[in-house]
Amino acid sequence: MPEISKRGRQMPSSPIRKLVPLAEDAARRGCKVYRLNIGQPDILTSPMALEAIRNIGCSIIDYGHSAGNESLRRKFAAFYNKIGAKLDYQDILITTGGSEAITFSLLACLNAGDEIIVPEPFYANYLSFAIAADAVVVPVTSSIENGFALPPVQEFEKKITPRTRAILICNPNNPTGYLYSWQELEQICDIVRRHNLFFICDEVYRELCYDGNGVKSALLLEGIDEHLILIDSVSKRYSATGLRVGVMATRNRELLNTALKFGQARLCPPNIGQLAAEAALDSPPDYNDYVFNEFLQRRDFMVKALNDIPGVFCPTPKGAFYAMVRLPVDNAENFSMWMLQNFDYRKQTVMLAPGSGFYSTPGLGRQEVRIAYVLNINDLGNAMECLKKGLQEYPGRI
Amino acid sequence: MPEISKRGRQMPSSPIRKLVPLAEDAARRGCKVYRLNIGQPDILTSPMALEAIRNIGCSIIDYGHSAGNESLRRKFAAFYNKIGAKLDYQDILITTGGSEAITFSLLACLNAGDEIIVPEPFYANYLSFAIAADAVVVPVTSSIENGFALPPVQEFEKKITPRTRAILICNPNNPTGYLYSWQELEQICDIVRRHNLFFICDEVYRELCYDGNGVKSALLLEGIDEHLILIDSVSKRYSATGLRVGVMATRNRELLNTALKFGQARLCPPNIGQLAAEAALDSPPDYNDYVFNEFLQRRDFMVKALNDIPGVFCPTPKGAFYAMVRLPVDNAENFSMWMLQNFDYRKQTVMLAPGSGFYSTPGLGRQEVRIAYVLNINDLGNAMECLKKGLQEYPGRI
Repeated sequence: MPEISKRGRQMPSSPIRKLVPLAEDAARRGCKVYRLNIGQPDILTSPMALEAIRNIGCSIIDYGHSAGNESLRRKFAAFYNKIGAKLDYQDILITTGGSEAITFSLLACLNAGDEIIVPEPFYANYLSFAIAADAVVVPVTSSIENGFALPPVQEFEKKITPRTRAILICNPNNPTGYLYSWQELEQICDIVRRHNLFFICDEVYRELCYDGNGVKSALLLEGIDEHLILIDSVSKRYSATGLRVGVMATRNRELLNTALKFGQARLCPPNIGQLAAEAALDSPPDYNDYVFNEFLQRRDFMVKALNDIPGVFCPTPKGAFYAMVRLPVDNAENFSMWMLQNFDYRKQTVMLAPGSGFYSTPGLGRQEVRIAYVLNINDLGNAMECLKKGLQEYPGRI
Repeated sequence: MPEISKRGRQMPSSPIRKLVPLAEDAARRGCKVYRLNIGQPDILTSPMALEAIRNIGCSIIDYGHSAGNESLRRKFAAFYNKIGAKLDYQDILITTGGSEAITFSLLACLNAGDEIIVPEPFYANYLSFAIAADAVVVPVTSSIENGFALPPVQEFEKKITPRTRAILICNPNNPTGYLYSWQELEQICDIVRRHNLFFICDEVYRELCYDGNGVKSALLLEGIDEHLILIDSVSKRYSATGLRVGVMATRNRELLNTALKFGQARLCPPNIGQLAAEAALDSPPDYNDYVFNEFLQRRDFMVKALNDIPGVFCPTPKGAFYAMVRLPVDNAENFSMWMLQNFDYRKQTVMLAPGSGFYSTPGLGRQEVRIAYVLNINDLGNAMECLKKGLQEYPGRI
């Protein structure tokens, strides 16, 4: 039999997805599984998006432009202009989800073997995209003890080598919920300018900031037009993850044109998704408020419920809809599997995302899990009760 | 400014898409452009697909399974069972178009620097996917003189090195319209078995065969379960290119599981597209007959019209909806640009795909273009008239 490629063998199973078969088994045994492993909210998709889909007028679903439909690109440009960012529609490439925006960025910026610095814990799939692109993720470790604040500049400087090509952050952060301050962003600017690096800033959770000040987009940073790549998506803002519509935006025209060539190869982003995304961008403030308030309440409820469980530590996330949580267990992955395979409480259990998959430094995150507060408060309450009981019964409790 | 990656700089502009800006300029000048450059038929999308989209029942467009929706995977399995292929739904991965199926196949089978043998001319984006995967396309040249038949086995053997990992063909062929015979497929089987290679067979045009015997799917080949990867798509069969729904199918479970890990990273294929694709697979025979007969008539009309133009040579394509055509010009790319920039006939012109972009051997295809017979016969007639007049006026005619 021919051999699988090395990158194929190195490719990790996503910590977000790897326990799904166990959850399916549990469901087959008649057990209700609360899925806190993945950022799939039970929030209704923007009705504007659904209406656009139902009213589709065309009779041929054809290829669109490889850069995305111009009308959608213009709408995104207007969206960024509203938050004060100078951006033309020609600075915007529509991608098949934020995932493809990251992939195109890595392919256009990094050669095989080149390095990208990412504060860890990080969105686990960054590592997968890097392996697919034969690039190397170099982590700068942040810690649960100080709520996952950005490590000091010196920590970044220490990691820079001749192969370093970019720094990647997610703000607000998935999986930690941390909000990078304007000062922290300026620190990164300073590093990327001095070392001539790209700065990839993933802002797919930009509107979900719970501390009142919100987050200023990296698009507002000055003097780094040639360095900055913004990653965005309609998935979370409009609760429309299945549309697969994202954005790669940069004022570096040579870079965008390079990314576009990768885009030409795959022809175009999904067309119905683009149609729906364009409508979603017109969602009324009521919808946006509903989404925001739901997540705010869920966060407050869940963080309290978690910290009320003996031995559990959950720093308060300031944005997005995840928390990295430390559990009083020997091994959080074993615990997560045990919850699905060996435990139920009143025919209910919980699926978590093991924390170690969000670190690339071996051994880190062994006691942590990522929990997505994506379910309504009633379900979240039941899930927290299951988790509490599970932790009481788990043989590997410490 | 940070430097673009080497693979980004190497990435070719797609010959299918690179002239689009010139066509847009021509349209702005009030010129009607017949777009024969791209496989975008003016055929109506399967009404079943459109109906499914209009009747979408859900209120949350959520992530689906990374391998694709199980119901769609099962429907594809049944589809292949009907043509006599033993295939389980678990052998099938739903992808974001056939494009992603090829990308996943390359990533899972080839290391950086590994080689894949492809008969040229080939679908131009194969080269782009290979560059993105840091793989090397090694061409085996077929010739317009004998209608682009598969080169003899010895030609393949000559190209095999220790880095060779796979052979890739497209059957029926894009861009040549050639149908590989069962005997030719068995020859490839023999090579991949003897040299322990993967065999990637792209059959997205499988139903479009005009010579009566049709094409037998590579899925029916025996004894190469560990080697064979089938690429498929709903784009062409149901005239639904914008859905972005394709298939990677293989009975090699380790390979499929590896590809699935790349799939987990990008979360899931577009969900509305999958919904529409599932409905499209139930299209009535009437629809399939309409699509088939349209293309058959267009082919017959266009091949005659082309060969009636002095100096033009077009071997009769036996399948798909493309022809590679030799023109009496010094340089077919210059001619294609000239047609958009400097020519019109009664305010009309034609966009062609320059042939050299479908070869990786430098210098080949300079007099050739790929023409997609994707427009109705009236438009095709006008396009052929434009082409004839253009060839008369073109200063580089030879």
